[in-house]
Amino acid sequence: MNTSVDSPNPMIASDRVEGTAVYNRNGDRLGTVERFMVDKVSGQAEYAVLAFGGLFGIGHRHYPLPWNALTFDPDKGGYVVDVTQEQIEGAPGYDAEGGDEPSYDREYRERLDAYYTFPPI
Amino acid sequence: MNTSVDSPNPMIASDRVEGTAVYNRNGDRLGTVERFMVDKVSGQAEYAVLAFGGLFGIGHRHYPLPWNALTFDPDKGGYVVDVTQEQIEGAPGYDAEGGDEPSYDREYRERLDAYYTFPPI
Repeated sequence: MNTSVDSPNPMIASDRVEGTAVYNRNGDRLGTVERFMVDKVSGQAEYAVLAFGGLFGIGHRHYPLPWNALTFDPDKGGYVVDVTQEQIEGAPGYDAEGGDEPSYDREYRERLDAYYTFPPI
Repeated sequence: MNTSVDSPNPMIASDRVEGTAVYNRNGDRLGTVERFMVDKVSGQAEYAVLAFGGLFGIGHRHYPLPWNALTFDPDKGGYVVDVTQEQIEGAPGYDAEGGDEPSYDREYRERLDAYYTFPPI
């Protein structure tokens, strides 16, 4: 995740990431970061889980986005990611309420990595 | 942070870390993880902020602990860290309500690293 280099604080609080809005390059608001997934051993943040779709919080789904694909935009007060709404709709995701959260095993992570092939930011 | 190697999921959700209990080696409950601090550029979790002291959530203070000092104990359902309550009381910390959160600049981080010199776990 890229952020302003002149930011006075090199750290961001986990609970500040959660709930932050996510936009695409066109400025469309895709949703918010529901949570993010951290590698238990290395402590590396690997995926930001986007809450997308639905209406007033009902019926939305969760889409893990590669952490490195998100860039914080201080002007927007949110993260920007270079994907369209249509790309999100076709991406690996799961029902936010259904309890079918992925296990992030190697196969699932390879699917995510293969789906999100971003150009350099 | 070290966790069970046979865990089926290599990832942990950020909002599951938050609120998790922290114990010391004697089994004393030191407090809970209030949040954790992630390096904005690298995405590396660097510090778990321990909410410690006070009574019924009043008057407690926040103490950033090096992320690598925490080990998850599935039996306890919490993290274990090799420090005493007295060590925490003398550690760099700040008022949880006072708005005097550290900026995590180099000097502050060096203070933390110097204070917490853990033996290998």
